[in-house]
Amino acid sequence: MEFDTIAAISTPMGEGAIAIVRLSGDEAVAIADKIFKSPNHKRLTEVATHTIHYGHLIDPKTDEVVEEVMLSLMRGPKTFTREDVVEINCHGGIVSVNRVLQLVLRYGARLAEPGEFTKRAFLNGRIDLSQAEAVMDLIRAKTDRAMNVALGQMDGKLSRLITSLRQALLETLAQVEVNIDYPEYDDVEEMTIPVLLEKCGWVREEIIKLLQTSSQGKILREGLSTVILGRPNVGKSSLLNSLVQENKAIVTDIAGTTRDIIEEYVNVRGVPLRLVDTAGIRETEDIVERIGVERSREALKDADLILLVLNYGEELTEEDERLFETIQAMDYIVVVNKTDIERKIDLNRVHELAGKHRVVTTSLLKEEGVIELEEAIAALFFEGQVEANDLTYVSNARHIALLHQAQQVIEDALAAAESGVPVDMIQIDVTRTWEILGEIIGDTVQESLINQLFSQFCLGK
Amino acid sequence: MEFDTIAAISTPMGEGAIAIVRLSGDEAVAIADKIFKSPNHKRLTEVATHTIHYGHLIDPKTDEVVEEVMLSLMRGPKTFTREDVVEINCHGGIVSVNRVLQLVLRYGARLAEPGEFTKRAFLNGRIDLSQAEAVMDLIRAKTDRAMNVALGQMDGKLSRLITSLRQALLETLAQVEVNIDYPEYDDVEEMTIPVLLEKCGWVREEIIKLLQTSSQGKILREGLSTVILGRPNVGKSSLLNSLVQENKAIVTDIAGTTRDIIEEYVNVRGVPLRLVDTAGIRETEDIVERIGVERSREALKDADLILLVLNYGEELTEEDERLFETIQAMDYIVVVNKTDIERKIDLNRVHELAGKHRVVTTSLLKEEGVIELEEAIAALFFEGQVEANDLTYVSNARHIALLHQAQQVIEDALAAAESGVPVDMIQIDVTRTWEILGEIIGDTVQESLINQLFSQFCLGK
Repeated sequence: MEFDTIAAISTPMGEGAIAIVRLSGDEAVAIADKIFKSPNHKRLTEVATHTIHYGHLIDPKTDEVVEEVMLSLMRGPKTFTREDVVEINCHGGIVSVNRVLQLVLRYGARLAEPGEFTKRAFLNGRIDLSQAEAVMDLIRAKTDRAMNVALGQMDGKLSRLITSLRQALLETLAQVEVNIDYPEYDDVEEMTIPVLLEKCGWVREEIIKLLQTSSQGKILREGLSTVILGRPNVGKSSLLNSLVQENKAIVTDIAGTTRDIIEEYVNVRGVPLRLVDTAGIRETEDIVERIGVERSREALKDADLILLVLNYGEELTEEDERLFETIQAMDYIVVVNKTDIERKIDLNRVHELAGKHRVVTTSLLKEEGVIELEEAIAALFFEGQVEANDLTYVSNARHIALLHQAQQVIEDALAAAESGVPVDMIQIDVTRTWEILGEIIGDTVQESLINQLFSQFCLGK
Repeated sequence: MEFDTIAAISTPMGEGAIAIVRLSGDEAVAIADKIFKSPNHKRLTEVATHTIHYGHLIDPKTDEVVEEVMLSLMRGPKTFTREDVVEINCHGGIVSVNRVLQLVLRYGARLAEPGEFTKRAFLNGRIDLSQAEAVMDLIRAKTDRAMNVALGQMDGKLSRLITSLRQALLETLAQVEVNIDYPEYDDVEEMTIPVLLEKCGWVREEIIKLLQTSSQGKILREGLSTVILGRPNVGKSSLLNSLVQENKAIVTDIAGTTRDIIEEYVNVRGVPLRLVDTAGIRETEDIVERIGVERSREALKDADLILLVLNYGEELTEEDERLFETIQAMDYIVVVNKTDIERKIDLNRVHELAGKHRVVTTSLLKEEGVIELEEAIAALFFEGQVEANDLTYVSNARHIALLHQAQQVIEDALAAAESGVPVDMIQIDVTRTWEILGEIIGDTVQESLINQLFSQFCLGK
């Protein structure tokens, strides 16, 4: 395929040692050549592929030096996009990198849309859609495990599995076709149905297995949305601080709203906790008080995990009991804090209220019990499952939704086959399953969806 | 010189398309070779310099894939540090880049100190100290003009001038030496003094010229620290917003204190305004009210420019007059805002109070007068000076201080020469001037100072 030449800043914005402006397209080398001046008068159009060159960027109209750069030149198809790619490494300042970008835009490149480089890698056939999506997951990965899932998916692990399922469906369809096409055999049904049941049954099993990884996969990818709940002065912000201190916290500033939302990711034994509204907790020590009971219930609704903090040195209050009630249908762990003071809480009653949920006692002051709490969180998450490194995870909401659809349709096909529906009717469902699975890897997918998917990428990727 | 091999993340932290981990030192290639696996089994120890290689990073102990990377290999001395340099381009996620860094640290690299790459470039003689300092200025540049100053300095513009001044001093000293060594001439003084007066006079003139650029240079580098002052409801935050909207604002988060300090840079016709405490203004609309009169006076003390906002639709109050008094010794511009409502302010009295300072009337509501204000700011800053692109600016506080010292010592030498002090006494001052100028380019400078200077750099540079 042929596209125009795009350019974008590919490193995060901010002050750093190095920033990169990346170009991709037929004109990438020609544009770079117009503005690049090497001390030994090299022409970029003549240098070998995959080589690095020192020099200055000059605005040819004014002869003004724009930057001192290292320029990497890679000719397609052995590049990220399969097109000619030029990466300009410049000094990592905000003005510097913008100047370089403006210069390449002035001399013929077009500003890339978010995700456009990866989109080209997809459209040029270097990667499929699920691999492209993994690129973004990899960048956003909050823990090692999440990154491994993304790496595996990027490497084509999910693609290969999906492709083999689709292959099986295709073979079934071919078989059905052949049998139907030879109406001289009147035992078409008898010949076809067993094959159909076997193959489709296998596909269903694989889809179910994949979906079983999805809740873990999704959490690895997006983090376990966690709310710390409790009355004032039970130690909510101490809990937050010890989780953050003991584990590497990754503070994510949401671009453009730096001062409004700060999410904090804490990596608890491979489980990424996304601590919701931590700024709120830090500032007022009381989410309920601050945003009101109704709105805090709203906030709770989206939580994957609640940490309910109680005071070991006080009797249970009505408010505590109400909090138990509010969260009864959710995943939660009870943290009875302040074992360093005299016990007044009725632990039997706590266990009674908690039911099957774990109760952990802590003294955050003395740094006791935090390890047990972390183990409880990890146990809840992995639910006794062995950590399987070679498991193929589905983590992407789009993939999960498509797998659910595919499962439903293939179940329909199987039920129909068993209840003696004519084979050519079943054929429709099998074809539909093949199509749905194809959407995961981008084989049978609409352009508008593709555009929408890539627009969620970050700029320069 | 020989050093151990250092590594650091050289791109800004955050989510982006690409991040770079950079290694420098004798072992850089060997370390990379241990962990890099290319699809065609290339050995990095055998590839040509300045080439780029696609592959995966593998932990050789576990055989686990750590990342998919593009690796740039550059052998010294044609590198930033003059040592062997390997740049690992990985996916720009926080986890991803940290994993790559941890891997290279595990296999033999040491974490670089801030500025250590540039320090090596200096210690290995690729650049002098003023050029090294310019690298950092370039990264921190807030406007095009500031970047041009830094680029020029990095390119050795200041170094060359300083070197030529030192050369002149050295020649003078040599001449004095020769004359003293031939005591058969008893007209040593007569022969030497005129030479000394001429050469040293020239050096003094050049130092003075350089120092004349320093206030502009310093502001270009650090931004014009600007405070918007005025009573509540005169339109301070509207003024802030229109300055920010009309001009590209660069919000700088100070690392680690994101929520405490936000500085906003606004580029007004090449003049970088550093808007102080903008968060404060935005939130409370009143710096004086919020931090108290005493402390706000303190804040004003460090300001380079005050924008005093008055209300066109109200009579001048005692408080307004007090504000004029407070800032009387400072650079300020008076902004009489709200010309969209009926005038009640006594403009004659305003001009009387303002004296030589500019008074601009605006209706920020109707977006009127902002251009005039910007012109007033630019005029104040450039003070009618023509923009001279080929001027050598001094912008660094350390350089300015040294130039002041050098000026003082050379003035002493000149005064002594004129008043008949023996030549060998004057010699001491001339030598001292030569030494002081040497400190600017790092020729005569102590190790402790070098360490301190580079420690202010950002990590990975």
